Amino acid sequence: MPRPKEPTDFAEDALIARIGKRLSIGPRAAPALRLGLGDDAAILRANAAEDWIFSTDFSLEGVHFRLDTHPPDAVGYRALARAASDLAAMGSEPAFFLLSLAIPRARAGRWLDAMLAGMRRAARRLGLRLVGGDTTCWPQVAISITVIGRAAPGRAIRRDGARPGDLICVSGRLGGAALGLALLLQKRRAAGGKAAIASRRNSLLRPHLYPQIPVALGLHLARQRLASAMMDLSDGLSTDLARLAKASRVKARIHLDRLPAVRVPPALARRGIRAETLALNGGEDYGLLFTVPAARASRIPRAFRGSPITVIGEIREGRGVEAADAHGRIRPLTSAGWDPFRRSS
Amino acid sequence: MPRPKEPTDFAEDALIARIGKRLSIGPRAAPALRLGLGDDAAILRANAAEDWIFSTDFSLEGVHFRLDTHPPDAVGYRALARAASDLAAMGSEPAFFLLSLAIPRARAGRWLDAMLAGMRRAARRLGLRLVGGDTTCWPQVAISITVIGRAAPGRAIRRDGARPGDLICVSGRLGGAALGLALLLQKRRAAGGKAAIASRRNSLLRPHLYPQIPVALGLHLARQRLASAMMDLSDGLSTDLARLAKASRVKARIHLDRLPAVRVPPALARRGIRAETLALNGGEDYGLLFTVPAARASRIPRAFRGSPITVIGEIREGRGVEAADAHGRIRPLTSAGWDPFRRSS
Repeated sequence: MPRPKEPTDFAEDALIARIGKRLSIGPRAAPALRLGLGDDAAILRANAAEDWIFSTDFSLEGVHFRLDTHPPDAVGYRALARAASDLAAMGSEPAFFLLSLAIPRARAGRWLDAMLAGMRRAARRLGLRLVGGDTTCWPQVAISITVIGRAAPGRAIRRDGARPGDLICVSGRLGGAALGLALLLQKRRAAGGKAAIASRRNSLLRPHLYPQIPVALGLHLARQRLASAMMDLSDGLSTDLARLAKASRVKARIHLDRLPAVRVPPALARRGIRAETLALNGGEDYGLLFTVPAARASRIPRAFRGSPITVIGEIREGRGVEAADAHGRIRPLTSAGWDPFRRSS
Repeated sequence: MPRPKEPTDFAEDALIARIGKRLSIGPRAAPALRLGLGDDAAILRANAAEDWIFSTDFSLEGVHFRLDTHPPDAVGYRALARAASDLAAMGSEPAFFLLSLAIPRARAGRWLDAMLAGMRRAARRLGLRLVGGDTTCWPQVAISITVIGRAAPGRAIRRDGARPGDLICVSGRLGGAALGLALLLQKRRAAGGKAAIASRRNSLLRPHLYPQIPVALGLHLARQRLASAMMDLSDGLSTDLARLAKASRVKARIHLDRLPAVRVPPALARRGIRAETLALNGGEDYGLLFTVPAARASRIPRAFRGSPITVIGEIREGRGVEAADAHGRIRPLTSAGWDPFRRSS
């Protein structure tokens, strides 16, 4: 399948743009609206002291999880964590969520209880409180979550604020979730495609099954006014950085030898799993991707609450994303992260 | 299949209660939260002049619409109208919405454009503006919509405020949507189960395909402080009234000869389709069900913007719902409306 050359070719982005265009209903006065489509989340001005941040996320059987592979509590945990990641990416504080749940009758017992237990654990950790929802009976499991967060007025960090000279930073390790998923699918194949629910104890699987959302780091960056642009790493660095660069109308250059890539166990490396590929294109790490003006570079912490923060490149004049290798050779970086409309689901 | 005897037996209500219980995370301070689970929508205090109202709703292929039966623009129109109905039911003014959309690749072209055109028409009519969303590729069409409305502080009308002596009112005709659906399914059977997209011009189908949401009436009832309790008629009067009575801890008595039932064409009446059954148990009319203290009865309009308002009964001490027939005989009314977990989907 040919890869898209430009992030503008991304099928999902094109679809979102089309939906926005078709549904736009003209310049209706909406004084509370601060930011609509196109970022991680929408921003409404609730009052003089607070903006409220809104985002919505699907977690669908067969796309975001498999019933024969993912432990039910991980399904619940991830569904809420993924949604909350958009709040962290704006530097906002998670507050409330609404849950819409479609499940087959046969899953409405023990499976549901275990799924809800995982979601409850995520809710506690993330500070999210359930305020509403919808349930229905359906042949497949579909979870839709809307999260509501808070930020000081005007302080939420958008993805369009990067300027030439800014440093490009990421939090956490890159590729850990993709490595966990690769392991999971490999176990599944080894089991002959039969049901093989993953062990929750395997530490290599944890970044995929129970992603940690850097809410506190996002808040810190917003409160300290450190980041000029920010988004979450949900679809993979090569894709997400292209989106940030496009929104900010700048070029991003990263240095491949600086990527905080996950360590790939030798047995997997021998099978061709490459750390750099996972780091560039593996999605669902849910770390933060952000830019910091050079004048504030000295205030970038080396780590935050145990998670490393790495400067991986810089913003330049121009468009697109390029990568420099260890020898200083520069090439354009193809957006090869997750795109639901390009892969078979 | 045995019918439930009490609304508390309702499978969907029980599931919602279970989710709420399993996900509750203790008495965490949430000063903005005015109303959480259990009503049509949640209420958050945005500022001294405004409450913001939140609700979320699924529209799923095979449950809420069929791709081989429903015109795509009706799928879009209904999805947004159904969600907005929860805002009308609180007496709030629709403002914003988020759209999560899962569709097969093959539907992402013309079908999607037509669906979005229907949704745009509903958005215009309802005063809703798109501010965010999520899209993904999936074998089935799943639409999840979160709506945000506004109300004056403390003025949103809940379903738990009905008191003995209050009059029970409904807006619009009852059973029109169920009649439209019955016609639609009959046409489908007549076509031998083959694709038979409904004509948008058939006026009997319109209440099902393009439900009118009485937003202005809801606002009027809230602003005039006329209604003591309110909800929307989404699952059918017998079920929805039981929910209102249960939330308010009262008994509801309706008079069957006062129901503003849809007129069933003779050809359909001969096939056993009864207006009273449709009026009692047919869902998706999306009229308003509300109670008015007797002292304010004279202020109940007979119609509002062309739609009739009918007093169908009164609230009494006790629990449950009962129906009086034309001879004054009173019997308990069974909740026999729509319950996704009791029917096969």
